[in-house]
Amino acid sequence: MTDTMATATIEADPTLPIIRISRDFAATPAQLFRAHTDPELFARWVGPDATTTTVDRWDASTGGSWRFVGTHDGMEFGFHGCFHEVRPDRIVQTFTWEGDPDGVALETLTFEDLGGGRTRLHVQSLCDSFEGRDAWLRSGMETGVDQGYAKLDALLAAGQIAEGARA
Amino acid sequence: MTDTMATATIEADPTLPIIRISRDFAATPAQLFRAHTDPELFARWVGPDATTTTVDRWDASTGGSWRFVGTHDGMEFGFHGCFHEVRPDRIVQTFTWEGDPDGVALETLTFEDLGGGRTRLHVQSLCDSFEGRDAWLRSGMETGVDQGYAKLDALLAAGQIAEGARA
Repeated sequence: MTDTMATATIEADPTLPIIRISRDFAATPAQLFRAHTDPELFARWVGPDATTTTVDRWDASTGGSWRFVGTHDGMEFGFHGCFHEVRPDRIVQTFTWEGDPDGVALETLTFEDLGGGRTRLHVQSLCDSFEGRDAWLRSGMETGVDQGYAKLDALLAAGQIAEGARA
Repeated sequence: MTDTMATATIEADPTLPIIRISRDFAATPAQLFRAHTDPELFARWVGPDATTTTVDRWDASTGGSWRFVGTHDGMEFGFHGCFHEVRPDRIVQTFTWEGDPDGVALETLTFEDLGGGRTRLHVQSLCDSFEGRDAWLRSGMETGVDQGYAKLDALLAAGQIAEGARA
């Protein structure tokens, strides 16, 4: 049922401590915005297949904040941050994995309309050191990225993500 | 009345898009924390002498957010961000000058106890490009930094900044 889309591109910037991910979806920008801001939808697709996500705190608006916990084989992995800006074409937020509580990345998501019901998601993660950035790249993050976005593809194909503002 | 303290050191990292400021104060870490989290106190010292600061939004807690407006010669300069983490020895927040609304820096403030009632403030500002970082350095920011911290020295010397939690 799911369209075969390009897999995610994950790139390390050569001169900045940045990871850039891009991924095309059979979705409008409004649908991708909703998938990233509606907590029930977000919990259904984010992360690896073997992880169950529970949203603990969620206010997806400019100046709001968020926290979710992923459970995998009985282990809990917490993540939290604040929303610097939430607007239809762009989300800027901070990101901490609580296993490294002083590590913080600044994430910028943009939704690029490709026309014809397709949208390219761009995610930029800015770290404050190359060591921190490279440790993140070596952590196996691509499994969560690829499996998560495949789940998002499936939700879109099943008509589970309507356009329009959240309730 | 005010102690003559070292002026602020402002440094550009050679390999990362980071500005680092450090400045010693005749204050405890708790007093510096209060000066950065109590909105009435903050508005009294931040920025250049010729600027009047009005706090528009302020929740200095983990997951909170802030906005203030500086008025100078009838012109208004807005700034806003969210608080990723607020704890006694460290504040992590985002920072946007609204004249460049898509520009965002990730700021980390730490309060290093030097003993004897002296504390070293460290401010790290992480930008997502060297161009953005260098434009900020060329903007005349050192005037606001030096004059602001001199006002904070004066508030401390006048006994205006008590220790202890805010109300």
